[in-house]
Amino acid sequence: MKGQGIILKFELIGKSTECRARRGVLETLHGVIQTPVFMPVGTLGTVKALSVEDIKTCGAQIILGNTYHLYLRPGCEVIDLFGGLHRFMNWDRPILTDSGGFQFFSLAQLTKTTEEGVSFQSHIDGSRHMFTPEMAVTVQESLDSDILMCLDECLAYPSTFEAAEKSLALTTRWAARCRTEWLEKTGCKNALFGIVQGGMYKELRTRSAEELGTLDFPGYAIGGLSVGEPKDLMYDLADHTLPYLPADKPRYIMGVGTPEDLVELTAMGADMFDCVMPSRNARNGKLFTTFGDINIANACHRTDTRPLDETCTCETCRNYSRAYLRHLYKASELLAYRLNTIHNIHYYCTLMETMRKAIEEDRFETFRREFYDKRQGETEP
Amino acid sequence: MKGQGIILKFELIGKSTECRARRGVLETLHGVIQTPVFMPVGTLGTVKALSVEDIKTCGAQIILGNTYHLYLRPGCEVIDLFGGLHRFMNWDRPILTDSGGFQFFSLAQLTKTTEEGVSFQSHIDGSRHMFTPEMAVTVQESLDSDILMCLDECLAYPSTFEAAEKSLALTTRWAARCRTEWLEKTGCKNALFGIVQGGMYKELRTRSAEELGTLDFPGYAIGGLSVGEPKDLMYDLADHTLPYLPADKPRYIMGVGTPEDLVELTAMGADMFDCVMPSRNARNGKLFTTFGDINIANACHRTDTRPLDETCTCETCRNYSRAYLRHLYKASELLAYRLNTIHNIHYYCTLMETMRKAIEEDRFETFRREFYDKRQGETEP
Repeated sequence: MKGQGIILKFELIGKSTECRARRGVLETLHGVIQTPVFMPVGTLGTVKALSVEDIKTCGAQIILGNTYHLYLRPGCEVIDLFGGLHRFMNWDRPILTDSGGFQFFSLAQLTKTTEEGVSFQSHIDGSRHMFTPEMAVTVQESLDSDILMCLDECLAYPSTFEAAEKSLALTTRWAARCRTEWLEKTGCKNALFGIVQGGMYKELRTRSAEELGTLDFPGYAIGGLSVGEPKDLMYDLADHTLPYLPADKPRYIMGVGTPEDLVELTAMGADMFDCVMPSRNARNGKLFTTFGDINIANACHRTDTRPLDETCTCETCRNYSRAYLRHLYKASELLAYRLNTIHNIHYYCTLMETMRKAIEEDRFETFRREFYDKRQGETEP
Repeated sequence: MKGQGIILKFELIGKSTECRARRGVLETLHGVIQTPVFMPVGTLGTVKALSVEDIKTCGAQIILGNTYHLYLRPGCEVIDLFGGLHRFMNWDRPILTDSGGFQFFSLAQLTKTTEEGVSFQSHIDGSRHMFTPEMAVTVQESLDSDILMCLDECLAYPSTFEAAEKSLALTTRWAARCRTEWLEKTGCKNALFGIVQGGMYKELRTRSAEELGTLDFPGYAIGGLSVGEPKDLMYDLADHTLPYLPADKPRYIMGVGTPEDLVELTAMGADMFDCVMPSRNARNGKLFTTFGDINIANACHRTDTRPLDETCTCETCRNYSRAYLRHLYKASELLAYRLNTIHNIHYYCTLMETMRKAIEEDRFETFRREFYDKRQGETEP
């Protein structure tokens, strides 16, 4: 499979000597990504409340699109008219799409899994659909996503060992079918990542990583974390699983997490992250800062003329006060959602940039200590 | 009163020979305004869905703030901390504020008018407040508005001649009190405009204009139009009243209207306009274009790769298709409201710019004919 027209290149350009943190460069058809990287979630062809210019100004190098959502709305036939998601939404940097696997189980209704694939009912209009591993690849390819994800089965938490083992086996068979479809039908100009599952069982995580490893994907993700398990268990599983993923391939932890999670998982050697937390929290008035988390609705901000974070260079902090942001938020003004989202996405992207620099200069532990010291300053309910 | 530190200057630099359209320049402490001008409405210290950068990019020279809304939320004591509305909302161009008169009658509850002023109950928390003409000036002055409006009584439509006459007399007495407060307490660095009322009775409109004329305000508005009366009657009243306003002062028609209204009223000699229509319609998917009005929710736009208006240079039309805008709108994505509002506000500001140029080049009638010809192209339900 190697060299079959695969555009994605991954090069490690630095490693911490204090922990497993890695500094890499990922090349795609739509541009170069410096890793470790955070990918803002753009579910429906828009990072909620932001324009593409906003997303760039926040420092985002790549965004994530949700295949399930885009397949249902506006539908592939619309996006096809634009030759893919990039031109449809006017975003010229890389895009990673998920396979829909997570949404079939978390959002769709009457989901039924067979060897063939997943049948489900749309959460929007109740229409019935069937998704196979092959379709997951075809649909993502039609979106012209730079990084495609294999269709995986997402397990409920908690699950028995037997259920997790059975599900993992299906995910592996589906991954092989995705790979065949990708190799034979797409030209491989976009990359396909495998997704490690296995529930909360280290033994199964190891098995999944090893089985997928033999399929030699251009990159690997760990799925099924942060699904309700205790934080320590999530860290323990990630710490266990990451070393089983090929060291020369990008490693992506799906759907995680808090700023603290990004720091810990980067220290364990993860390269890529996505999470709705910065954008969703922003819309709920929860704002991340260097000095802790702020709830902008709190009365203490009513007459506060300071910016959210005096060390932040985002558009929101450069131009607006906490008093103004609280006023907008309390009045449910649309601008509140945008300014809050700009700040949170900028915070996440800047945190990753700071970590990249710390790895380059091999002072990750110093960075980590300072990060935690500062974050204890001001956390509000 | 003349020359008592009044900063506002108004100069007429052109007149149509075909109609009464005027081309002027209005100087305020926060910058120069080319008239005729449209002022986007920024009710709560934000033009809904737009940032101040967006507002500027749309071509807005001045925005309107609503005194009633800002007085209740966030409250003057908050805006005072910033030395006024400009710094609070980060807008460095001119601001005009209304007096609250219209909102006391349209939005507040249990409104009671006496000679002294208006008592009302907040539509937000039911708290009781009292507003006098003097307070209207004080509050607007504390907002550091460039153009303040006198407190007026807004009449229900329809009203009897007797009711309109009585109301108009009160509005005139209040205007005199506003003027005294402004002259004696504010230093007159910001301008105060009088508001002509008189319901749907030409005789009363004449009387109002003449009485206010003797008070020699820096500018004049016509209030109480577009409150439910037939369009012909509105035009007839404006056409009648405008010539009674001092020719060397700016003339502002409040709360009006459609693109067609702006063209007709400019032809009659009005200089300033404000209306929620472009922003409110945008949030409801109704978009103004050179070729008529579009309802972006309509199915015909689902696969339309063209911009809203191929002759438009706004950010929305330069970067996004109708198909994308329809998708965002149907999915209730926040970006829809912003992109739609950018287009509509840009359309209004550009229309005014086109009219200014037509007046300068004395071809207003040619402009007007072309405007109507084109607008018949594509109007949707």
